[in-house]
Amino acid sequence: MSVSRTTLTALLHGADQPGLVARVAGWIFERGGNILHADQHRDMEAGIFFQRIEWEPGQHPSGLKATDDSGATAFTSFAASLGMKARVLSSTHRTRLAIFVSKADHCFHDLILRWKSGDLAAEIVAVVGNHTDLASAAAGYGLPFHHIPVTPDAKATAEARQLALLRDTGAELVVLARYMQVLSQEFLESFGAPVINIHHSFLPAFAGGRPYHQAHTRGVKLIGATAHYATRDLDEGPIIHQDVVRVTHRHEVDDLVRLGRDLERVVLAQAVRWHLAGRVLAYGNKTVVFD
Amino acid sequence: MSVSRTTLTALLHGADQPGLVARVAGWIFERGGNILHADQHRDMEAGIFFQRIEWEPGQHPSGLKATDDSGATAFTSFAASLGMKARVLSSTHRTRLAIFVSKADHCFHDLILRWKSGDLAAEIVAVVGNHTDLASAAAGYGLPFHHIPVTPDAKATAEARQLALLRDTGAELVVLARYMQVLSQEFLESFGAPVINIHHSFLPAFAGGRPYHQAHTRGVKLIGATAHYATRDLDEGPIIHQDVVRVTHRHEVDDLVRLGRDLERVVLAQAVRWHLAGRVLAYGNKTVVFD
Amino acid sequence: MSVSRTTLTALLHGADQPGLVARVAGWIFERGGNILHADQHRDMEAGIFFQRIEWEPGQHPSGLKATDDSGATAFTSFAASLGMKARVLSSTHRTRLAIFVSKADHCFHDLILRWKSGDLAAEIVAVVGNHTDLASAAAGYGLPFHHIPVTPDAKATAEARQLALLRDTGAELVVLARYMQVLSQEFLESFGAPVINIHHSFLPAFAGGRPYHQAHTRGVKLIGATAHYATRDLDEGPIIHQDVVRVTHRHEVDDLVRLGRDLERVVLAQAVRWHLAGRVLAYGNKTVVFD
Amino acid sequence: MSVSRTTLTALLHGADQPGLVARVAGWIFERGGNILHADQHRDMEAGIFFQRIEWEPGQHPSGLKATDDSGATAFTSFAASLGMKARVLSSTHRTRLAIFVSKADHCFHDLILRWKSGDLAAEIVAVVGNHTDLASAAAGYGLPFHHIPVTPDAKATAEARQLALLRDTGAELVVLARYMQVLSQEFLESFGAPVINIHHSFLPAFAGGRPYHQAHTRGVKLIGATAHYATRDLDEGPIIHQDVVRVTHRHEVDDLVRLGRDLERVVLAQAVRWHLAGRVLAYGNKTVVFD
Repeated sequence: MSVSRTTLTALLHGADQPGLVARVAGWIFERGGNILHADQHRDMEAGIFFQRIEWEPGQHPSGLKATDDSGATAFTSFAASLGMKARVLSSTHRTRLAIFVSKADHCFHDLILRWKSGDLAAEIVAVVGNHTDLASAAAGYGLPFHHIPVTPDAKATAEARQLALLRDTGAELVVLARYMQVLSQEFLESFGAPVINIHHSFLPAFAGGRPYHQAHTRGVKLIGATAHYATRDLDEGPIIHQDVVRVTHRHEVDDLVRLGRDLERVVLAQAVRWHLAGRVLAYGNKTVVFD
Repeated sequence: MSVSRTTLTALLHGADQPGLVARVAGWIFERGGNILHADQHRDMEAGIFFQRIEWEPGQHPSGLKATDDSGATAFTSFAASLGMKARVLSSTHRTRLAIFVSKADHCFHDLILRWKSGDLAAEIVAVVGNHTDLASAAAGYGLPFHHIPVTPDAKATAEARQLALLRDTGAELVVLARYMQVLSQEFLESFGAPVINIHHSFLPAFAGGRPYHQAHTRGVKLIGATAHYATRDLDEGPIIHQDVVRVTHRHEVDDLVRLGRDLERVVLAQAVRWHLAGRVLAYGNKTVVFD
Repeated sequence: MSVSRTTLTALLHGADQPGLVARVAGWIFERGGNILHADQHRDMEAGIFFQRIEWEPGQHPSGLKATDDSGATAFTSFAASLGMKARVLSSTHRTRLAIFVSKADHCFHDLILRWKSGDLAAEIVAVVGNHTDLASAAAGYGLPFHHIPVTPDAKATAEARQLALLRDTGAELVVLARYMQVLSQEFLESFGAPVINIHHSFLPAFAGGRPYHQAHTRGVKLIGATAHYATRDLDEGPIIHQDVVRVTHRHEVDDLVRLGRDLERVVLAQAVRWHLAGRVLAYGNKTVVFD
Repeated sequence: MSVSRTTLTALLHGADQPGLVARVAGWIFERGGNILHADQHRDMEAGIFFQRIEWEPGQHPSGLKATDDSGATAFTSFAASLGMKARVLSSTHRTRLAIFVSKADHCFHDLILRWKSGDLAAEIVAVVGNHTDLASAAAGYGLPFHHIPVTPDAKATAEARQLALLRDTGAELVVLARYMQVLSQEFLESFGAPVINIHHSFLPAFAGGRPYHQAHTRGVKLIGATAHYATRDLDEGPIIHQDVVRVTHRHEVDDLVRLGRDLERVVLAQAVRWHLAGRVLAYGNKTVVFD
């Protein structure tokens, strides 16, 4: 009869072994927790077990709900005792999110409008642009905009400034909302937290630059968009979400760009939403999406 | 290291209560079983818990795998002790399936070709037609065809013959593959097992007769098909699966009929496949589909 | 080699007769025009011919391109001589558009962002709200917002104010961007120009109020949105565009509302875009969409 | 008031020039013909004009409808006088079709069932298999099956036998219904008529062998199928039709294969249907599909 619906969600994975589902459920049950959702997956070839489990924690001996760090820590330790890695999120947590942009504004507006309507469990700590085109739009939403120009000669300097900003703001996730620069491996390693990118093609088709031009040249009948985690190999990271839309011979490149904007917005937003809700587990070059 | 992958799958539902996930998992684990998949759902408004759980049973004291009736019976009793209703399927079971047809052959051929390619875990025990149009097609596949004509005056007689045939063949499921007759409430109650129908519209739009004509008259831009369990209220039964396809002002009724055939085939086959795999749980007027 | 790509687009329809395609093409050719696109449709049952034709007009005797009113007037007269009704648009024309809103902002922001990116050939002459929720958003875009409250007792008064505003601003199209009020027949007749509405269901399923609640109760597996011209019969007007998105038993009403927002935005924007580009011809209770 | 609805359909293309639409329509009109459909497209970059036009020919001086070769020949000459290439089909023509198969039967059954239901304007003149797996299925449909084994050492011999068969049967179109052999450039040139292939991926992603394995390895969230004209460059020919279906981390390669079968069937059938109806115009490495 608790009024509070504060929950913990764990994403765990590790070598498969008999009894994992029962042990995890038993651990939560013994501590008075109530499992609301549990979903698991086995990669039979790789012998890996994946689980997303969400529960209402029971009463602490202290009389407080164990939704604070202690509950998450305890579960993580338990998972480790099973040889599993776990990430635990509280439903009260707002992920600290930095958005990188260039000149295109459609994904930016889309993310912000969803965030304003309460769809994204995040706190937007910075908007970073290598151009100033979106500075006033960010200001209009009351968001801090940081102009960090990126030139071929001074890319390392720019990335150092970006990293300092991410550190200062405590960013836990970077979303590249049509940010037209490649992040270096050094950047990704230094940041150490996930980066989600939207590529404007149905990967692996048309990787690299100007995918709508490539699609038009090849004469495909569908164009796509792909949201993926950024890795050192451009356009090769684990895919979170993809979708396509039908095109015909009547569509010029400009039409593909316009149609693609809707795709990019929806695909990126869905990927970010799933990530923030603790529904995406990346392993190797793939993702498990518990939707 | 078992070579055998024989599994049991339980579909259970009942009043929600804390600890259900843990108790079910614990029961299986204690008996040496290994859970392969488990998926659950809560209807928060109605306070009902639903679960589909699939496991490799452990060794019986007798030295035999408990995949026979004893394993299913034991789990059903356990579920009852929790106040839950359970249906348990063995992966070795082939559901005894009767297909009812009239004149249209597309859904019939489609089901049979999928069945021949091993996609449907069923044994086809009878093809029943109120017309003889598909008699030779059934014969071509080596399937027993039964012609039971249905006239307005002698519908009760026809249904009695159908019921006798279903009883004799031990049918556990009837699929209406564009069978153009309404089954009476008495028939459905006497049969006592599920009946899956395909309606050629996106229900609840265009219930009743000649849905493609209705769709054409209304000028809709998408047409649909709906697979549902047959109930006493025609076109009102729990929906298992639906899909749509885009149409334009250029499509005449004949085009809608043609486009709809592809939809009907795919939607009906998917619904039947899910049902046979123990993935559909009907309650009230809805379904939970564990896909 | 003309640098200018100014074109005229005609939408015409009337009783079918032999030779219409040739006569229309001949008329344009004889006047030095160059046909860029031509698309036609015949409703065989009703015996009606529909055509959308776009051409670059030839040089006027005056030395000016006949893209002004004279070109449109001449074609309209020619069409009348064939017994056809024609509407002619110049590619330089910006349709004067009024947007009606209530509290929901997603369709509003979506339309404005598309308009700002140049996707909609319109001039936005007024934003009209029966609530003030979107006043500041409109101001942020630099658009005139008019608060005209609507109460059951004073609906006629409110509509009179709306009509006066539409007259003063020269509005040629009204878009109801989740405007939660029914427009009276008197309003529609007095306005005399098209009104496009977005209904948050796959019509004719779930007409009337609270369609997502209705969809949830019925247990459908797809939800939809429908853009249509408003007529005196609520939810019965000619359908311009529809789309659907898949849902499951896991989706509560709130989820349907959230998923529906994306559908509503895209479906409404597409319908408005087609209308503004002279691609929609309504007749009877249907539309011909030349896409 | 003609009872007959025999029509001619021309596909024409060539260098764009002013007045083409009017001249073609005028030519038909002057000969008493009535245009039923006309659709055109301009490739602005390449400066090419494409048109599909369907008309009811007028009375011949001889008193016969000019739907015979004379009508087609006359139009082809007229098109040549405009510098255009034309292909003219009579609605009474049944294209002579040869189907090549290997072991997989789903595309084969699907094409035949559509053909039997009257959806394909073709006469099936031969079923050619490099294996005998589908011999009895072909016999069941009353179709002539030819077993022409293909070995790496004797591929040229096999192709010579295939070409002789195509010549003897007067085949005008070859459909590769999951025929798992690459046709040599020599074969394609000698045959000199179109060959339609179905590739089981969303080209250009996963060209080459075992595309479902490639898709599984890459972790894509959609799989596709592509129907294209076969050219000397394997998987590089002009694309006629493509579609995709959603997959998740739960789908093993076997599931992709199963889901892909439905895609392949529908995509191939649609491409063949469009080709037979004179709706596809290939140029360079693209197609114009007048649907």
